[in-house]
Amino acid sequence: MIDLYTAATPNGFKVSIALEELGLPYNVIPLDLSALEQKKPEFLAINPNGRIPAIVDRDNDDFAVFESGAILIYLAEKSGKLLPQDPKRCSQALQWLMFQMGGVGPMMGQANVFYRYFPEKIPAAIERYQKEGRRLFEVLDGHLAHHEYLADEFSIADIATWPWVRIHDWSGISIEGLVHLQAWMARMAARPACQRGITIPPKKEDAASLVSAAQKMVTR
Amino acid sequence: MIDLYTAATPNGFKVSIALEELGLPYNVIPLDLSALEQKKPEFLAINPNGRIPAIVDRDNDDFAVFESGAILIYLAEKSGKLLPQDPKRCSQALQWLMFQMGGVGPMMGQANVFYRYFPEKIPAAIERYQKEGRRLFEVLDGHLAHHEYLADEFSIADIATWPWVRIHDWSGISIEGLVHLQAWMARMAARPACQRGITIPPKKEDAASLVSAAQKMVTR
Repeated sequence: MIDLYTAATPNGFKVSIALEELGLPYNVIPLDLSALEQKKPEFLAINPNGRIPAIVDRDNDDFAVFESGAILIYLAEKSGKLLPQDPKRCSQALQWLMFQMGGVGPMMGQANVFYRYFPEKIPAAIERYQKEGRRLFEVLDGHLAHHEYLADEFSIADIATWPWVRIHDWSGISIEGLVHLQAWMARMAARPACQRGITIPPKKEDAASLVSAAQKMVTR
Repeated sequence: MIDLYTAATPNGFKVSIALEELGLPYNVIPLDLSALEQKKPEFLAINPNGRIPAIVDRDNDDFAVFESGAILIYLAEKSGKLLPQDPKRCSQALQWLMFQMGGVGPMMGQANVFYRYFPEKIPAAIERYQKEGRRLFEVLDGHLAHHEYLADEFSIADIATWPWVRIHDWSGISIEGLVHLQAWMARMAARPACQRGITIPPKKEDAASLVSAAQKMVTR
């Protein structure tokens, strides 16, 4: 059994989607981010960075894995699924996974911070991250014009990217005109495991209290 | 032979350090970022994201790899070195690699932008990223208190992290009091391949023109 420490955020959903796709049994331990449960010593022993998601594999000597990208690779290797067998295609999946981990995630994250949570309204910072988010979407769109999924076959690269791209409205980043990206989003949204994954864990709070919690975290 | 498309930046140095550590033959193709050579069609065919570094492996059907983290994994797998053989330790190396790709790199990158290049001085944004950079350094310091290298043995996780942490002064982020991080930095700086890697490619321009080029890129 895998213990999944998570919350209803894009990085958390990556792992619940992967576990749903793989059909692996797992135990959800939701952390209350507004109560800073992710900074408590018992969780820091699992992830010294104090952020969700993290997993503990009870069937592998209680091995702990943090960083969503590393968890996805761990689960793919454990199951022999969700990463292409062909070495070149596998590298392509890892390249797009890194593009998400170093690009789409951090840049949309910063767009969210300045557009939604930051105590000051700083138009230049909002514009910077929304513009960079749109640029990254255009890169995805260009690639998806010739590929059904990011590494041709469905992989952890798609799983990592979709939970972020799907909240583009929240980040204030348009997908207008990006027809290949939109078609891929529809393909992702049609997968039953993707549909389930983004409800695990359920959002307990309403949007207003989530925003208020995020604002608190930004300013602490 | 490996063709390395790069520039004198922390992400570029990751790959030159890895190639130096591995002793693999490679051909350096420096791109002039201030002339936007990384956005030219011939380079976009190699990396659709238009950023350095990228490699083309001439001994593997001209296979192209972009994203520094994915290049490091590719080189480690090609050579059978720089990633631990033990699966758990290998996962730990990938976890710290992801911590660099999604945390240290993007956050120090944003600190550099607002502290050094942005047309407006926005104290709240500078403070946000310098504070987050320091927090990430403290996470590294806590881990390195009990580990000689990030995954115990020297790996691509260290190679990814060091070129960023070593420029902490440029980012305006202090390493004061972080004695374990400092000791690890000294261990890294003592490695001949690390010393060589951060000179490849050599900086052609003086600091002032590099800043001016970065300022142009931020505002375009």
